[in-house]
Formats: sequence, structure tokens, C-alpha cells
Amino acid sequence: MNSEKLILDGTRVAKSMNETLVERINQLSVRGILPCLATILVGDDPSSETYVRMKSSACKRLGIDSRRIHLNKATTTEELIAVIQQLNEDPQIHGILLQHPVPQHIDERAAFEAIQIEKDVDGVTMLGFAQNAFGVSSFPSCTPAAILAILDYYQIPIESKHAVIVGRSPILGKPVSLMLLNRNATVTICHSKTNNLPLIIGLADIVVAAVGKPAFIQGAWIKESAVVLDAGYNAGNIGDVDFDACHKKASAITPVPAGIGPVTIAMLLKHTVLAAEKSKITT
Amino acid sequence: MNSEKLILDGTRVAKSMNETLVERINQLSVRGILPCLATILVGDDPSSETYVRMKSSACKRLGIDSRRIHLNKATTTEELIAVIQQLNEDPQIHGILLQHPVPQHIDERAAFEAIQIEKDVDGVTMLGFAQNAFGVSSFPSCTPAAILAILDYYQIPIESKHAVIVGRSPILGKPVSLMLLNRNATVTICHSKTNNLPLIIGLADIVVAAVGKPAFIQGAWIKESAVVLDAGYNAGNIGDVDFDACHKKASAITPVPAGIGPVTIAMLLKHTVLAAEKSKITT
Repeated sequence: MNSEKLILDGTRVAKSMNETLVERINQLSVRGILPCLATILVGDDPSSETYVRMKSSACKRLGIDSRRIHLNKATTTEELIAVIQQLNEDPQIHGILLQHPVPQHIDERAAFEAIQIEKDVDGVTMLGFAQNAFGVSSFPSCTPAAILAILDYYQIPIESKHAVIVGRSPILGKPVSLMLLNRNATVTICHSKTNNLPLIIGLADIVVAAVGKPAFIQGAWIKESAVVLDAGYNAGNIGDVDFDACHKKASAITPVPAGIGPVTIAMLLKHTVLAAEKSKITT
Repeated sequence: MNSEKLILDGTRVAKSMNETLVERINQLSVRGILPCLATILVGDDPSSETYVRMKSSACKRLGIDSRRIHLNKATTTEELIAVIQQLNEDPQIHGILLQHPVPQHIDERAAFEAIQIEKDVDGVTMLGFAQNAFGVSSFPSCTPAAILAILDYYQIPIESKHAVIVGRSPILGKPVSLMLLNRNATVTICHSKTNNLPLIIGLADIVVAAVGKPAFIQGAWIKESAVVLDAGYNAGNIGDVDFDACHKKASAITPVPAGIGPVTIAMLLKHTVLAAEKSKITT
């Protein structure tokens, strides 16, 4: 590996991914298909609003249609599921994104499960999770897929490397662990109940931070020349990794912002285009 | 932990599980329900025949009905799926077990997926896998569930322990990893592409061997006082663990035979009874 410190620039990866989509979107257009992502936001959490706006804008820039559905925070689980079912049946809609988190009183899992697998471009359903775990998924969860895309873009080897994942959520820690495992990494999954976390992180060739605690991963913990992927995004644009300290030791590291974030959005667009390609012509 | 070497006697665990089932089977009988497991064997592999026979006999001993379906080895995927669909629709059948492996020309995954989730007592469907990964499964895969049952029976703590799983199959390595993770273990998954396997196994408080290589796990590899669970079952009644050498160092270890095997069968019976309890009365 290059002795130079490598900043894994997500903006560059996303740009490259988006470029390959333009031609595919053109070909769809010839067939009379305009890919369309429906985003559903429930309530008025400001960061969720920002995320949804970013996703819609990214669609627009690329020539993907988007339909933003904003439900008030008193929406019930049943009402939310009814909206999702309408989108499932709507042939103009190719992908459905339900922005996480929904208000506490809503059964988020039930809502996710209501999304038809063919439109689950964000990889949130249980069946989507299992397909991903078995290596047969069309739409793996976007952030885990983004992490793999960054490693691949920068030709960082995965096979036989020891990857340590900090975090075990159903849309990040668990799926990225299984994806790295399917790519022949040895995988360790850590979490809040892990003893001796620094010692375990010190074994890692690849560290994935997905804990949601600002600057949690310390430079002293990581092995010299480790590859560090920071999937955290905390208030004030701070990741889960102490960037400066880890940057000194790592061979490669994602920044926050402009690391995994933009690639996650590019992945969502890619999945939406793929869903449109798989759909029947509707005109 | 007791300084005495503990043999984790699966026969004893299975007996205890079966005892609690007897009363539940009686209560079902009062409601006019006889739990019934359908087993499907395709081809004439002698060890598969033995496994199926053992499962049927275990059913019989406990007062669970079983229907053995033996298909010849030329059966096509479509024919196998048609048989499964008939069993799905048959209200007398509560659980369906398709004996793994099926002949090479059959799409085993497609056949597994044909099993209705309510009758997937062996935990082989993708949806069953995901439910298990999310901690909401009725019927986790039987061998992984057996491993947890043994740990629980012998009150071996899981939380914050480091569990190293050797093997990553969809019905053993992957699900047991996720189950131990959901019980707050730190989990490392190793496989044929893992570098430095002895070093990683040496970190483990709990070792799960699921590789299918006779006496593969060496005594020199394990940590003093580790707990060793041997899910292997190779020709000549040999597990995946070098028992004598590991027994000397381990604080607790499952033997082969009479370790995880009998508990796996007890788990299958337990799931069949549970499936019957969840079914509608059919008389």
C-alpha cells in the first residue's frame, strides 16, 4: 500500500458512480421510463428534513424524478402503511425511501415491511436484509453498500483482512458485517457491551465506525496502517472517528463530511435507476 | 466458573426440553390438535436417510406425528416445490423439514423459499433468517438455537463475552453469529479465508466450530478456560474439535456425539409444537 496517507474522498466516488448512471437514465428515457424515487418524511425533525431534501436534490441533478411525501407527526402506523401501499401500486414510482427515524408512536418495522421488495431501494425490509446476507440482493442498505463501493473504488483489498465493525444496527452494522464477510473478510462485530474495545479495534485491518458517538474512535486504538471508514454523522458535522488522531496512523481514512455520506446518496440513486430498469414499461 | 471440567451433555438438555413439551402436546390434544412434522428427503444419501429417520423417531417418542416423504433423486426443483406447496396447504401439517443437502441439480434455495414461514420450523427461509437476525423469530435455525439452549441450560454467560464462530453457512455460522450478537456477545466470524485463525480463536471466551472438518480445532489454539461448542459431525462420529486436547484446556465443552446433535432434534420438536400451538384448530 502507498505510504502516503490516503483520504478516501466520497465526493469523487459518488461523482464516478453518477457518471455511469447518466447513460442508463438516457436509455430508460428512450424506453419511456423516468426513474422516480418517492421519499416519505413523517414529522418535522430538522435533520431528517435536510436528509430528504438532499436526496431529492441529488435525484433532480441527475434527471431522476422524485416525489416528496411529507406527513404530519401525528400520522398513525396504519396511515403510513396505507401511503406506502399506494406507492407500491403506483407504476410511476420505482423506489420508496421512508426516512428513518419515524416518530416514536409509529411501528417503524411494520412500516418498513410494507415496502414492496422491488421498490425497497434503501434495503430496509427483512427480506432485503436476508438477500443481502445471502449475497443475492439487488438493493443492499445504502450506507453499507457505500462503504464497499469506497473500498472497491480505491482498490483496497477486503479478502482475508480483519474487519472490525463498531455498531450493530439493522441498517448499518449488521448488513455491512455480512457484506464484508461475503467478500471473505474475517469480521468482528462490537457494540456498547463489548469489553476491551480498544484491544479489538487494534486487531483491525479495516475499521468501520457506526456508533453515533462523536469522535469516539481514538487514534491510539487503531493499528498502524489500518483503513478507517467513518459512517457516523453527528451534530456539527462530526463523525464517529477522531479524524486527526486516526489520520496520523491510518493508511486510508474517510473524512466527515464528504466521506461515506455522498456515496450513500449515490447508491440510493443507483438503486432507483436499477429498480426502474427492472420495472415494466409503463407508457 | 467451576474449576471442574464441564462436559456439556446435550442428551440432558434435550431431555429437559422434551419434558416441557409433553404437557404442551397434551394440551394440544385436548384442543383436538396433533402436531405433525413433514420431513422431505430427496435421493438416497445414507447419512441424510439416517438424520430423517432420527427426527421421525424423536417425534414418535414424544407423541408428535410425522409424515415422511421420500422423493427419488431425479426429482426436479419444480416437482419438489409442488410437494412443498401441498404441505403448505395441508392443515394437518404444522412443520416442514427439507433435509439438506438435496441433489446438485435441484435449486435448494428455491425449494427452501417455497416453505411457508409459519411452517418453517427448521429456520431455512430467508425471511426466517432475517427475523432471527432481528431477534423476532419464532423458529430460528435449529442448530444455532440448540447452541444457545446449551449455553443457557448450563448458565454460561454470553453477554460481553467474545464468541468466535468458525464457519459462515446460512443455516449455522451466520445465524448463530447473529444470535450471539443479539445476546450481547462480541462476535468474530472466521472461515477458510481467515488469516491467523489460531490467533483469533485464542481470543475467544466461546468457540463455535461449524466447519465440517474432523478434529480441526486444536487444543493449542484455544484460550485456557474457553467454552467450546462443537457443531461438527463428520464421518466416524467425529466433531470439528480435537476433543481430548481441547477438553484439557476448556472450562466446558460439548462432546460428539451427545452434544449439540440431540438438542438440535429437540429444538425441531419444540418448534413443531409451537407451530401447532399457533395453528388454527382443524377438527
